[in-house]
Amino acid sequence: MNYDIKDINQADSGRLRIEWAEESMPVLKKIRTRFASEKPLKGINIAACLHVTTETAALMSTLKAGGADVTLCASNPLSTQDAAAASLVANDQIPVFAIKGEDEKTYYRHILACLDSRPQITMDDGADLVSILHTERSAAVAGIIGGTEETTTGVIRLRSLAREQRLKYPIIAVNDASTKHFFDNRYGTGQSTIDGIVRATNRLLAGSAFVIAGYGWCGRGLAMRAAGMGARVIVTEVDHLKALEAVMDGYQVLPMAQAAAIGDFFCTVTGNKHVIRKEHFLAMQDGAIVSNSGHFNVEIAIDELAAMASQRRIVRPFVEEFTLREGRPSIQRDGYELRKPSPCGGIFSYA
Amino acid sequence: MNYDIKDINQADSGRLRIEWAEESMPVLKKIRTRFASEKPLKGINIAACLHVTTETAALMSTLKAGGADVTLCASNPLSTQDAAAASLVANDQIPVFAIKGEDEKTYYRHILACLDSRPQITMDDGADLVSILHTERSAAVAGIIGGTEETTTGVIRLRSLAREQRLKYPIIAVNDASTKHFFDNRYGTGQSTIDGIVRATNRLLAGSAFVIAGYGWCGRGLAMRAAGMGARVIVTEVDHLKALEAVMDGYQVLPMAQAAAIGDFFCTVTGNKHVIRKEHFLAMQDGAIVSNSGHFNVEIAIDELAAMASQRRIVRPFVEEFTLREGRPSIQRDGYELRKPSPCGGIFSYA
Amino acid sequence: MNYDIKDINQADSGRLRIEWAEESMPVLKKIRTRFASEKPLKGINIAACLHVTTETAALMSTLKAGGADVTLCASNPLSTQDAAAASLVANDQIPVFAIKGEDEKTYYRHILACLDSRPQITMDDGADLVSILHTERSAAVAGIIGGTEETTTGVIRLRSLAREQRLKYPIIAVNDASTKHFFDNRYGTGQSTIDGIVRATNRLLAGSAFVIAGYGWCGRGLAMRAAGMGARVIVTEVDHLKALEAVMDGYQVLPMAQAAAIGDFFCTVTGNKHVIRKEHFLAMQDGAIVSNSGHFNVEIAIDELAAMASQRRIVRPFVEEFTLREGRPSIQRDGYELRKPSPCGGIFSYA
Amino acid sequence: MNYDIKDINQADSGRLRIEWAEESMPVLKKIRTRFASEKPLKGINIAACLHVTTETAALMSTLKAGGADVTLCASNPLSTQDAAAASLVANDQIPVFAIKGEDEKTYYRHILACLDSRPQITMDDGADLVSILHTERSAAVAGIIGGTEETTTGVIRLRSLAREQRLKYPIIAVNDASTKHFFDNRYGTGQSTIDGIVRATNRLLAGSAFVIAGYGWCGRGLAMRAAGMGARVIVTEVDHLKALEAVMDGYQVLPMAQAAAIGDFFCTVTGNKHVIRKEHFLAMQDGAIVSNSGHFNVEIAIDELAAMASQRRIVRPFVEEFTLREGRPSIQRDGYELRKPSPCGGIFSYA
Repeated sequence: MNYDIKDINQADSGRLRIEWAEESMPVLKKIRTRFASEKPLKGINIAACLHVTTETAALMSTLKAGGADVTLCASNPLSTQDAAAASLVANDQIPVFAIKGEDEKTYYRHILACLDSRPQITMDDGADLVSILHTERSAAVAGIIGGTEETTTGVIRLRSLAREQRLKYPIIAVNDASTKHFFDNRYGTGQSTIDGIVRATNRLLAGSAFVIAGYGWCGRGLAMRAAGMGARVIVTEVDHLKALEAVMDGYQVLPMAQAAAIGDFFCTVTGNKHVIRKEHFLAMQDGAIVSNSGHFNVEIAIDELAAMASQRRIVRPFVEEFTLREGRPSIQRDGYELRKPSPCGGIFSYA
Repeated sequence: MNYDIKDINQADSGRLRIEWAEESMPVLKKIRTRFASEKPLKGINIAACLHVTTETAALMSTLKAGGADVTLCASNPLSTQDAAAASLVANDQIPVFAIKGEDEKTYYRHILACLDSRPQITMDDGADLVSILHTERSAAVAGIIGGTEETTTGVIRLRSLAREQRLKYPIIAVNDASTKHFFDNRYGTGQSTIDGIVRATNRLLAGSAFVIAGYGWCGRGLAMRAAGMGARVIVTEVDHLKALEAVMDGYQVLPMAQAAAIGDFFCTVTGNKHVIRKEHFLAMQDGAIVSNSGHFNVEIAIDELAAMASQRRIVRPFVEEFTLREGRPSIQRDGYELRKPSPCGGIFSYA
Repeated sequence: MNYDIKDINQADSGRLRIEWAEESMPVLKKIRTRFASEKPLKGINIAACLHVTTETAALMSTLKAGGADVTLCASNPLSTQDAAAASLVANDQIPVFAIKGEDEKTYYRHILACLDSRPQITMDDGADLVSILHTERSAAVAGIIGGTEETTTGVIRLRSLAREQRLKYPIIAVNDASTKHFFDNRYGTGQSTIDGIVRATNRLLAGSAFVIAGYGWCGRGLAMRAAGMGARVIVTEVDHLKALEAVMDGYQVLPMAQAAAIGDFFCTVTGNKHVIRKEHFLAMQDGAIVSNSGHFNVEIAIDELAAMASQRRIVRPFVEEFTLREGRPSIQRDGYELRKPSPCGGIFSYA
Repeated sequence: MNYDIKDINQADSGRLRIEWAEESMPVLKKIRTRFASEKPLKGINIAACLHVTTETAALMSTLKAGGADVTLCASNPLSTQDAAAASLVANDQIPVFAIKGEDEKTYYRHILACLDSRPQITMDDGADLVSILHTERSAAVAGIIGGTEETTTGVIRLRSLAREQRLKYPIIAVNDASTKHFFDNRYGTGQSTIDGIVRATNRLLAGSAFVIAGYGWCGRGLAMRAAGMGARVIVTEVDHLKALEAVMDGYQVLPMAQAAAIGDFFCTVTGNKHVIRKEHFLAMQDGAIVSNSGHFNVEIAIDELAAMASQRRIVRPFVEEFTLREGRPSIQRDGYELRKPSPCGGIFSYA
């Protein structure tokens, strides 16, 4: 069996962690029991490009219990839990291609390795696997029955492809399920983003000014939790209706140009590009903490920040400090360990 | 029996309302049952200067059940519930001197009438009765055993008297009871202030900017409720520790000079004088709604507002509109019906 | 001009109140200015069956400014503000047929009087006017161009008619507008329901157990506000997804059979019939306060309660007490003054 | 220089982390600047028994800047941050005796080593150092000028000593400072407890039932945060007034005997012993997560749990699973990394 993971010796601790995750997944456990006897996926070859976490591992072993052949790669270079990957390889004999912190080249090489399994079904989170399948590996499309896509961002990419009549097989938009965007995006991303920021920064949220860019499902989940931790929440939002909702929910709503000068914490969850950019960095207070929880690592114009910086250094795991030339330091978080597969979960700058 | 009330014919509706209030006063009802058999206050003459509400009425009838002779006057010219007063006179034979909306002269005449009963015990809310007893009626002090005082403001006045060694009999500071300031000031005043503002103005709080002057027990109760109704709360506070608490509780804290330009609603609960004054009125938006929930009608410099106004008119019950000369209208609430005896409950301007 | 209102002498106070309401309706004021010059509705005859409030009055005068002939009747016998009705008649020459507290016979007579205006456009809130137009006055349908319907309940009735191909002209479902159900149902009904319950009962919400039947837009708005006032919120909900949302929002979710024994307050906002019924009343604590904020007066089985009662009496305006035969009193609120046209605003029992 | 730490090579990363912490300690930084020029502590020997964290490190270097000789040991075997300890030794030449996870014997040996410095001033968090000084090292008391004590639990121990006239030198109760118990206990412990539980368990709080034993400053801080994360909070409290406050704050209040069967999470912050014990464990659901955030490791009767268990195993770092003999597993968290010196921060079971 071909695979590429960090350390097979983490398989035992990975198995314990997967079992722990499964305690919160009673429905999946029931499905696995049924799958084990009915084998509905017998002979089906599945390639999955997902956050390689303990929860995903539970899903993979369930698919395998249903008779499928499964290959897994990461949908995010930073979210991989190496122990979960090791357990899938060692305990479930599922090929995994994912190493936490892998560089961009490895990331894409792993997706290609996953596609080498000649899948009939694809499972995607962000549409990177489907994109490559439609371009570099278009010959393999013929064998595909269909696929799934987890996240808002991926669904937007696929809808765009479909409109141009270039999407070559049907894909289920998992994100459209009410139980997905109502719950995962709101409650899951809300907690995991707060958790990631606190783990990375060790800062007290109570009494801080917390700027949230975007008031979609993820943004409102994050706003609930930031307020729940005692922060004063400020929302930026370009959609009028959502901005109005944020106001009615009791938050201050400002353009980023004004919010930049106020925030102690900033987090982007918009799906858009360069939501925080040069002019905003210049307006920020010393020590402002900037983070992204959107799917792609594009919401913060890190290049523009880097170009202004006289110095950059890693001051804590996942926290990079940028000192601006005129002598004002500005803090840039560049990532944090993702705890669960979340469509809004962050990808951050990785040098 | 001598008394002065609005309309004795309201006694029946008053009795129903008092019974309704008593449903929320199970402890008092138990005390009344015990008092009725033990008569611990037999022969004691009590003069009470309290908010003449249904809850106070339940207290008065309990004291009478315990054997006391009770006389009641109002501690606030606007908080009297005329039906409760009528029921006390007609159904309990308790002399009451209180008419909702009475002018200042009548207010003081009623206190004097109450003192004519030659009390041995005084019950006060704001220390007006005790003040008059120590000045205009100092001869009557000799017969007094002791008294009680309900509210923060009154306790401050009495402590000042005591420091100067001019307080002539012992008074229990009811406000110091944990069950008083933790509960009445915080939860009671919080709800009743919101309720009063909404009844008077009929405005939606969600999405508004609500400025609260003062972060004492009353102020924090009001802040909880205003935020709970969806308002964005801004606090002004001169005490550093309390200001810090307001920040840590997630509120924006600003000096009134800055808050004035932001607020849709303003409410003072400080116990201080002229917290909102000329320069603040001039900074406010058109249509800003200004109210007081502190004990005395001094927190808002209404005279300064009036001096700037080209026009004043009552636009709704308890809402007076001031149009400033330069053409910008500013709205001034001048009072609302108090629902319960609350030490922070409002006294407002009465022409 | 033909009309039927309570008292034309309330026109002046009504005008003041309408002006006050207009201060919160800046968009409508802009439309009125444009309508006054463009007259886009010139010669159009409109029959409106809406909550006859100050806000509706502002809308009516705007339509008239646009050139329309307007006739107005009530969509709810209890929500009419008589002063607003008087002002429309006296100051705007708009025929109004609505008296607060009118009985059922008068209510329907007023709808018929409104239809006598031979409208080309109908505006409805609950679909009563459209229903009568399709039955008793079907001859008048021919002249209709189209209509609008405000509320969830009305839209459901009309969709049902349309499915059976019996709806004879197009109707715009105003409730489907995001600015309607996101805002009016959630924030408007949330505040106005709390406000109505507090005005009617004068009870403290903090520390109480508040049972909300239904977690639609209105229910969740009410839950936010009840929790914001310090109540412990318990939700009952038959839709699994909504029930799950209520759990994730931090509320306790129970079947009514269990919630009945816990609640201090109950409020129904389901759109369904007999959500609280005999077995629930029997399980309730003494003094439980039961109210409806759904559109129709059917969510509480008042008949079943009445059949068990040895005594009923009005103990406060809009509060009716039922004493059960076995000696346990149970309190039933039967209605309250509605402050604004709200699709979930209550219709209650009127003897 | 004598010292006992984990790994001196962590000094560089420790310095970075201490600098990071200092960014949130602007007042301390000002004091250090003043101390560096004024040297007010010149020649004073200080022994500190505190949580050995980055924040404490910043304090230690400030005292040294003021001229003091400082020696540091841990007040909790689990809260030590080894990198901070290394930096103090390598960069500040301050002797430190603390290793994260040290056993009980080492813990006390370190305290004795700290006392070997012959201090004139003691700084304590929990009163362990002072206790040993009064017993095993009573000869050293003579040289002591005074001391400080951080936490509620320690202050209670010292007050008890003082009442018996056995406390041999004056100690400042830091916990009595308003900025301490209002802020650290409420906001600090609130966030750090939630953070510790989420890091250890990786579970979603939204929608869970979270039982908090104790509604003191720490308990109410934790309740705010648990509710803010979307949990349904249940409080147990033996003090009537505090229990009433919890009710009025909107929480369900139950005896532990009833709460035990409901909770998904349990956290003790009472300062008392065996708040959760045999009968409660037997009533709990499978998978219940039990933790302590009180100062001492005595609030949960771990021995009683262990005696009932057929199996115990570490399933994640800081999480120990107990399987009860009758086949029902119960989960016991036994500790987590403390992020900051907090008087309520946890000590947990360590086998």
